[in-house]
Amino acid sequence: MPDCESIREGSFVLLFLDNRRSYLVRVEKSVKFHTHKGFVEFDDVIGEEYGTTLISSLGVEFVALKPLLPDFIYKAQRKSQITYPKDVALMVMFSGIGPGSKIVEAGTGAGALTTALASYVRPDGCVYSYDIRSDFQRIALKNLRKAQLERFVDVKQKDITLGIDETDVDAVILDLATPWLVVPHASAALKGGRSLVSFSPTIDQIVKTVEAMRDCNFVNVATFECIMRQMQVIRGKTRPHTLMTGHTGYITHGRKASRSNDEDPENVG
Amino acid sequence: MPDCESIREGSFVLLFLDNRRSYLVRVEKSVKFHTHKGFVEFDDVIGEEYGTTLISSLGVEFVALKPLLPDFIYKAQRKSQITYPKDVALMVMFSGIGPGSKIVEAGTGAGALTTALASYVRPDGCVYSYDIRSDFQRIALKNLRKAQLERFVDVKQKDITLGIDETDVDAVILDLATPWLVVPHASAALKGGRSLVSFSPTIDQIVKTVEAMRDCNFVNVATFECIMRQMQVIRGKTRPHTLMTGHTGYITHGRKASRSNDEDPENVG
Amino acid sequence: MPDCESIREGSFVLLFLDNRRSYLVRVEKSVKFHTHKGFVEFDDVIGEEYGTTLISSLGVEFVALKPLLPDFIYKAQRKSQITYPKDVALMVMFSGIGPGSKIVEAGTGAGALTTALASYVRPDGCVYSYDIRSDFQRIALKNLRKAQLERFVDVKQKDITLGIDETDVDAVILDLATPWLVVPHASAALKGGRSLVSFSPTIDQIVKTVEAMRDCNFVNVATFECIMRQMQVIRGKTRPHTLMTGHTGYITHGRKASRSNDEDPENVG
Amino acid sequence: MPDCESIREGSFVLLFLDNRRSYLVRVEKSVKFHTHKGFVEFDDVIGEEYGTTLISSLGVEFVALKPLLPDFIYKAQRKSQITYPKDVALMVMFSGIGPGSKIVEAGTGAGALTTALASYVRPDGCVYSYDIRSDFQRIALKNLRKAQLERFVDVKQKDITLGIDETDVDAVILDLATPWLVVPHASAALKGGRSLVSFSPTIDQIVKTVEAMRDCNFVNVATFECIMRQMQVIRGKTRPHTLMTGHTGYITHGRKASRSNDEDPENVG
Repeated sequence: MPDCESIREGSFVLLFLDNRRSYLVRVEKSVKFHTHKGFVEFDDVIGEEYGTTLISSLGVEFVALKPLLPDFIYKAQRKSQITYPKDVALMVMFSGIGPGSKIVEAGTGAGALTTALASYVRPDGCVYSYDIRSDFQRIALKNLRKAQLERFVDVKQKDITLGIDETDVDAVILDLATPWLVVPHASAALKGGRSLVSFSPTIDQIVKTVEAMRDCNFVNVATFECIMRQMQVIRGKTRPHTLMTGHTGYITHGRKASRSNDEDPENVG
Repeated sequence: MPDCESIREGSFVLLFLDNRRSYLVRVEKSVKFHTHKGFVEFDDVIGEEYGTTLISSLGVEFVALKPLLPDFIYKAQRKSQITYPKDVALMVMFSGIGPGSKIVEAGTGAGALTTALASYVRPDGCVYSYDIRSDFQRIALKNLRKAQLERFVDVKQKDITLGIDETDVDAVILDLATPWLVVPHASAALKGGRSLVSFSPTIDQIVKTVEAMRDCNFVNVATFECIMRQMQVIRGKTRPHTLMTGHTGYITHGRKASRSNDEDPENVG
Repeated sequence: MPDCESIREGSFVLLFLDNRRSYLVRVEKSVKFHTHKGFVEFDDVIGEEYGTTLISSLGVEFVALKPLLPDFIYKAQRKSQITYPKDVALMVMFSGIGPGSKIVEAGTGAGALTTALASYVRPDGCVYSYDIRSDFQRIALKNLRKAQLERFVDVKQKDITLGIDETDVDAVILDLATPWLVVPHASAALKGGRSLVSFSPTIDQIVKTVEAMRDCNFVNVATFECIMRQMQVIRGKTRPHTLMTGHTGYITHGRKASRSNDEDPENVG
Repeated sequence: MPDCESIREGSFVLLFLDNRRSYLVRVEKSVKFHTHKGFVEFDDVIGEEYGTTLISSLGVEFVALKPLLPDFIYKAQRKSQITYPKDVALMVMFSGIGPGSKIVEAGTGAGALTTALASYVRPDGCVYSYDIRSDFQRIALKNLRKAQLERFVDVKQKDITLGIDETDVDAVILDLATPWLVVPHASAALKGGRSLVSFSPTIDQIVKTVEAMRDCNFVNVATFECIMRQMQVIRGKTRPHTLMTGHTGYITHGRKASRSNDEDPENVG
C-alpha cells in the first residue's frame, strides 16, 4: 500500500456503490468495468485523486476509493474459512507486533490475516506463513500482490504441526484446526515473554489449546470472543441491526515464560 | 519498543504476578521493587532475557515480561476515560493506517490510543495529537516515553473543533465528546478516500456524528460496537465469565468522497 | 390448551420434521396432509398419544407433538411484526401477571403476545386487547381459537392512545409504535404499585417512553434488551451458532406509584 | 399472591427506595422498620393502597409496592446459586406450562424457580420439587409462604437422579449439577410430546445433557443462552450500562417423542 495518491494505470481501486456492494479492481487503460448498474470507463479515473466519483453508463455513481487494509481482508475471503477484520484487528493487538516484527503464522489460507500482518510489520519485518496446501498459498500470494505486500511474506508449504524453522520470533499467530499441536513448537520459536495468539471456532479447540499453553509454561493466558454489533443510525430510528453474525471464533493469547506455571486457573481475566 | 532483548538498566519490564496483577516498572540498579507479595531486586533481572522468573522476598514468583502494546494501553489508563485495547485495535484496523501513515488524533487524553497509533506508524509516520488540556498531555507524554514512542507524536495543545492544521492526512481518529464538530475539519484534512474513525459512548453522539459525516459526503459510513466476552477455560468447567464489561462505546467510520452522497441510509452494513 | 391427551378429530398437532420445519395443523378424518417430504394421513394419529411418530408416503418420519405455547407464538407470526417467544416470556415475567390477572394489551397484532397473556391468566382472568385494525384482529382471533384461548380475551377495535376503558387492571402491556402516548392512560387504569411493560425496537421510542413514565410517577423504571444466542451442541464441535438475530427490541417496565418521582435517573438497574 | 388490594396487617410489601435498594417485608402493627435512610412506621401504610408513599424519619420517600413475581424471585436468592428472573421466564416459556400443569422440578434450592412455577400453575396445578438438602427446602418453604404459594408445591427430600415418582407430568424442569442423569427418568415421567427444560452454567453440562436427550429420543432439542443488557435511558445520554452480567447459564429444552431420533444434529435451531 505505497503512497501514489493519484490513480494510475495498474493501481487498485475500490469501486464503491453502497455499503453492501463494492469491487476491488485493477485500473487498466481503455478498459470498461461492467456491473449490474452499467459500466464505468477506467480512463475516466486515471490521473484523478482517490475519492473521485464516476458515473456509470446507466447514470449510477461509483466512488473510486483507495483500498485500505480492511478492504483487502474482506476481498481475500474464501467462503470456506472466513477471518473477519474484527478478529484480525484483535489478533494483531494481542500479539503485540508492529513495524519490524518477525512473525510466524499458520495457516496461510487465502491470506487475509497474512495481509494484515504483512501490512503492520513493514518496512523491515517479515511474516513466515505456513500452510500445507499449495492451492491456498497461490491464492494468498495473488491477494498479497494486490496489496503490494508480497515482499514482506515468506510463504512456506510445510506442516507447522511438525515444527517451526524460525527462532527468536516476536509472535506466533495461529488460525488452523489443531493449534494445540503447534504450541510446543511456538514455545521453542518465540523470544522470551512474547505472544502466541490463536483463533478457533469451537470450545473443544480452546480447551486443548489453553491446556497445551499451560503445559508449556505460557503465562497471562486468556481466551475471549468479540461479538460485533452493527447499528442502524438514523435520527429517530436508531437501533441495532436485526441480523448479526453470532459467532466467528475465540481468540486465545498468552506469553512465553520460563517459570513453572502454577497460576490459579480461575485467575483468567 | 525497540529491540533490546536482554533486560538492561533503564528497560521497562512488566512484572507479571497473575492475570489480575502486573506492574509496568523501570529497571534500576540496586533498587528493590515492593509489592504486597514481598519485594524483588532489579539486580536479579539485569542481563537476563525477558520471560525470566523472579522470586520475591516472600517466595512468590514474578515473570519479567517484555511490555507489549496492550500493556502500555492498559497501564496508560486514567479512571475518568478508559480506552480499551479492543476498541483501539478496531479503530486502528478501520482507519486503514500502518507504517508511514500521517494521522490526526484527538483528544490525546492519557495517551492510550496515541501510543497504539504511534506504534503502528513507525518508523516514518507521524501522529498529530490534539487536546485542550495540557495536564492530560503531560501524562500522555510520560506514557509515550515509557513505550519509547514520543518521537512519532506531535502533541498539540489546541481545540480541534476549531480546525485542523494538517492537510493530506491518511486518517483522522477521534475520541472526544463532540466528534460531529470535527467532521468538517476532518473532511478538509483528509486525503481523498481516506478514513475518519470516531469512538463515542452514547447513542446521541453517534447520531450527530453520522449525520455530520453524511452532510460532508463521507461514504461507507458504518457504526458498530464490539462486545468482548472473556471465557473461563478449564476442562469440564468451561463457560463465559460471570462478569463482563457491557459497554465501552460505539465506533463510527467512513471515507471521504467527492460525490454528493445520496446513498440509502438503510444500507449501513 | 385443555387436556385431551389422545389426539382426536379436531385436535391441533404440531407435525415436527426437524428444528427448522414443523407444521401446526388441525386433525381431520380421512384427510391427507401434504408436505415436500410426502403426505401423512391424519387417520393414522387419531386415537394415538401425542409424541407418536408418523411415516410419510415418502418414508420420512414426522412426530405429532402437542402444540405448546411457544409453538402458538411462533406460528401466529406475521412477517411485518415479529414478537419473539423470548420477549413474550420476559414481558410476562416483568408484568408480574398470573392466573386471575386482568390485563390491558395493545396492539393485538396477529395475537402472538395475546395468546401468551391469555394462557397465563386462565382460568378466571381476562385480557383486554386493543388494536385499531380489524384485519389484524381477525387473524388474532383465528390464532387464539387454535389455542382454545379466545374466551379469555376481549378484542377491542379502538385506539388505545385515546384512552383505556378499564380500571383497576393488574398490568398494561404495550407493543405498538407510540407507547409514550399510552403511559398516562396506563397510569389511570392500573391498580397502585402494578406494572406497565412496553416493547419497542428503537432508542427513540424507549427515551420517550421512559420520560413519559417518569412524568407519570412510575418508579422502578428500567429498560433492557435480551440477546438470545443459540448453541450448536455436538461433542467436540460445540460453539455458538454462526448466525443470530441481533436485535428484536427493548423492554421497558416500571410500576405505578403515588409519590412525586425524584429518583436519580442514573439509578436505573 | 391473592388479591387484597389495601395493605393489611400481615401483608408483604416491597419498600422501594431506588432501583438498587428495596426491601420485602411483612407489615406488622406498631412496628418500625429501620433502614440506613431512617425508619418507617408500618401503621402508616395499614389500610392504604399499594403504591402509596411513606416518608422515613429522615425525610426519605419509600414506595410501598405490591410484591410481584420477579420480586419474590430476586429476594429468594442465595449467594451460592443465583437464578435470574430472565432465565426463570425463559424456562417457564419453553416448558409450555400454564394454569393446571403438573410439573416436576429439581433442585428446589432456595425456591426462586419453584415460586415462579407455583405462581403459573395456579389454581389447580402442582409442582413436585425435589432436593436432597432439607436445609434448602426449609428456606424454599419460607420463601413460598411469603408469596402465599406453598399449597401448590410438594417439596420432596429425594435424589431425583435415582428416579421420579410421578407420571404423566406436563413438564420436567431442572436446575442441578448433573441434569443428564435425570433425563431417562424425565422421559419416563413425561406425557408424550411434552418438554424437558434444563439450566446449566457450563459447556460440559450442556453437551452431556443434549447427548442424553438425543439418546432418550427427545426431539426439537435446542440450547441457547440469554444475554440481558440494561440500558441507561436519559435523553442525550442513552447507552447500554457499563457493567453487565456476562453469563448465568445455558437453557436446553426438548420434547419427548416415541420415534427413533435420527435427526441431523446440525439442525439445532
